[in-house]
Amino acid sequence: MEVYFDNSSTTRPFDEVIDEVALGMKEFYGNPSSLHNLGLKSERKLKECREMLAKTINAVESEIYFNSGGSEGNNLVLKGVLKSGSHLITTPFEHASILNTIKKLEESNVKVTYLKINEDGKVDLEHLKESITKETVLVSVMHVNNEIGVVQDLGAISQIIKENSNRAKFHVDAVQSYGKFQIDVKKLNIDFLTVSAHKFHGPKGVGFIYIKKPNTLSPLIEGGSQEFGVRAGTQNIPGIMGMGIAAKIVNALIEENYEKVFEIKKKFIEKLKGIDNIKINSPLNEKFSPYILNVSFRGVRGEVLLHFLEESGIYISTGSACSSKEREKIGGSYVLKSLGLTQDEISGGIRFSFSEENKEEEVDYVIEILSKGLTFLRRIKK
Amino acid sequence: MEVYFDNSSTTRPFDEVIDEVALGMKEFYGNPSSLHNLGLKSERKLKECREMLAKTINAVESEIYFNSGGSEGNNLVLKGVLKSGSHLITTPFEHASILNTIKKLEESNVKVTYLKINEDGKVDLEHLKESITKETVLVSVMHVNNEIGVVQDLGAISQIIKENSNRAKFHVDAVQSYGKFQIDVKKLNIDFLTVSAHKFHGPKGVGFIYIKKPNTLSPLIEGGSQEFGVRAGTQNIPGIMGMGIAAKIVNALIEENYEKVFEIKKKFIEKLKGIDNIKINSPLNEKFSPYILNVSFRGVRGEVLLHFLEESGIYISTGSACSSKEREKIGGSYVLKSLGLTQDEISGGIRFSFSEENKEEEVDYVIEILSKGLTFLRRIKK
Ligand SMILES: Cc1ncc(COP(=O)(O)O)c(C=O)c1O
Ligand SMILES: Cc1ncc(COP(=O)(O)O)c(C=O)c1O
Repeated sequence: MEVYFDNSSTTRPFDEVIDEVALGMKEFYGNPSSLHNLGLKSERKLKECREMLAKTINAVESEIYFNSGGSEGNNLVLKGVLKSGSHLITTPFEHASILNTIKKLEESNVKVTYLKINEDGKVDLEHLKESITKETVLVSVMHVNNEIGVVQDLGAISQIIKENSNRAKFHVDAVQSYGKFQIDVKKLNIDFLTVSAHKFHGPKGVGFIYIKKPNTLSPLIEGGSQEFGVRAGTQNIPGIMGMGIAAKIVNALIEENYEKVFEIKKKFIEKLKGIDNIKINSPLNEKFSPYILNVSFRGVRGEVLLHFLEESGIYISTGSACSSKEREKIGGSYVLKSLGLTQDEISGGIRFSFSEENKEEEVDYVIEILSKGLTFLRRIKK
Repeated sequence: MEVYFDNSSTTRPFDEVIDEVALGMKEFYGNPSSLHNLGLKSERKLKECREMLAKTINAVESEIYFNSGGSEGNNLVLKGVLKSGSHLITTPFEHASILNTIKKLEESNVKVTYLKINEDGKVDLEHLKESITKETVLVSVMHVNNEIGVVQDLGAISQIIKENSNRAKFHVDAVQSYGKFQIDVKKLNIDFLTVSAHKFHGPKGVGFIYIKKPNTLSPLIEGGSQEFGVRAGTQNIPGIMGMGIAAKIVNALIEENYEKVFEIKKKFIEKLKGIDNIKINSPLNEKFSPYILNVSFRGVRGEVLLHFLEESGIYISTGSACSSKEREKIGGSYVLKSLGLTQDEISGGIRFSFSEENKEEEVDYVIEILSKGLTFLRRIKK
């Protein structure tokens, strides 16, 4: 049996997506910037995708800009908005594409406030309010955290920003939430929203960013006038078409899929009761995404457990895939660290991340192998 | 009959490329940063592609960095190398992703010298030599110009740079030459080389950059440690695999393909002798790429001729696709302008760009329609 419980890292593209990308490569290879029919055909297809994607977040077509994915989107917003002297407010557990970009910007005299995180992983809203100053130009908060799945209250955050500043813009990294949670950029008063296709069964290397007012930021990639001057480079139409199909499929089933993975997570947590010395870092409640279950197995190293599980065809993660090679340096996940876990809990942290394609039976299998593994690994460690 | 003579704008992906991308999406969807088998499988595939691509330019695997295409590659080099006070040497007819990026960098006190261009479109090597100063950190010259196809003598340029500076790095935009001309980065002493897959029948939205010493530049997209820390973001493995196949196919046939398109261009130029009041901006000699034929049709507007031809299924371009919507502002191509053409010649400029998939018969058809079009358009203009 093969069980893929690493969907927050990346997902298997839907068959419809694979077909659509192939169709795009066959039929829509014209350059949308070309003035002839083949170019116009591609441009029309681009527009169609833009309109469709815009609707999924209650935006309009001209607010959707295609790019190469989440890391590019996050870099564009930070580097495009923040100048020397600017003040940014964010959290200590954003994705590496936010945190590492900030480190670089701090060298150019960008000031940063990292918000306090409550015990349950939520941003301290009082601290947010106190932190906003006249120099605050951007607040960047991820919707769903990629390691523990905590869901931030975007409405509350947005309200505090707008009540306390008429300057600060609100950026949401929605890479882990788009297609899984309803997002209404108008209602939530969001200025920038980052999305990446490969997290919802779309192709890799393509994403989009919602931008309310494009004149508020300078491009990361300059050149031709593609994407209304916000992002140069010949558009990846087949990839965009594939992303469009994936978005269509997942957005039509947000509630059903939520229920499905909720049941999987519920069953998993119930079955985990039979295993001792663990800590569930993402409990089953509305504060956490049902797509992510993060558990600390005390007395084992996450990496070792990961390799034990893969021997039985079970694919999981110790945290963020992107930082999995860096994390050894800091002795485990910086996200778990920021939540105040013990070193043992940090080092034994495992992320199971689900997709609506997973089956409840897979949980039984994983629990069975997991129990065996823990018994074995904890014994040899003594 | 349909004739696609707009291959410098973008190409039709090979069927093998479409199949490979589909295979990649089905079989190699694991995140190469994941620590489990599926991740390793993807990582191994990445390495395989990197090695194969490296060989095509006489580089080694660790010098190849995947990205989203030519515009990103060009932006990375310029923004990653040039700092306030740096001096850059380039040409006035680089691609928009170079020229527009430079405009932005000039605001941050980067100094720029635009090399004089000889009548035949070649860089004035004396001027290059004179322009190199102690502050010169980068010389950026495109290998083959995308509008007129003039081929620069990279060896001569490189030699002048290395003889006159031990600091200046050499960047080559090889987007229009990779897979069409032999490029040996070691022999030519190139520090950075930009490549984009969709120009040689690969997928859109993917490319690579050769970097001799990655520690000499700061990343454009920061975040995870993908691509050895030079470019964050989950890699587009299916796209990279597709690029690999396309590169394999074209690089194995460089000479044959050169001969094929040379014959097409030769025939085209011969047949053009029957049409009066034209100027060939890219003659049939070794100074110009046989893949590009740029002709000024005096007394007609390029756009009008373009639309006349598309009525008969002929797809061509008035210049660079990327700037086709900007060019109206400046009354035609800045490339033709930089060569000192008259306004009539600039406004009547047309680029026919070939692929080894084109057939000689297509030339007969295009010439036939072209003659009709010119007779008609020149008559109504009088
Ligand atoms: C010479 C040259 N450089 C760079 C580019 C940009 O490549 P891409 O469209 O992949 O961003 C192009 C084509 O558009 C080009 O012709
Ligand atoms: C929350 C979050 N933001 C950004 C990214 C980066 O997305 P991409 O891999 O498309 O660059 C990821 C995933 O890698 C993520 O989980």
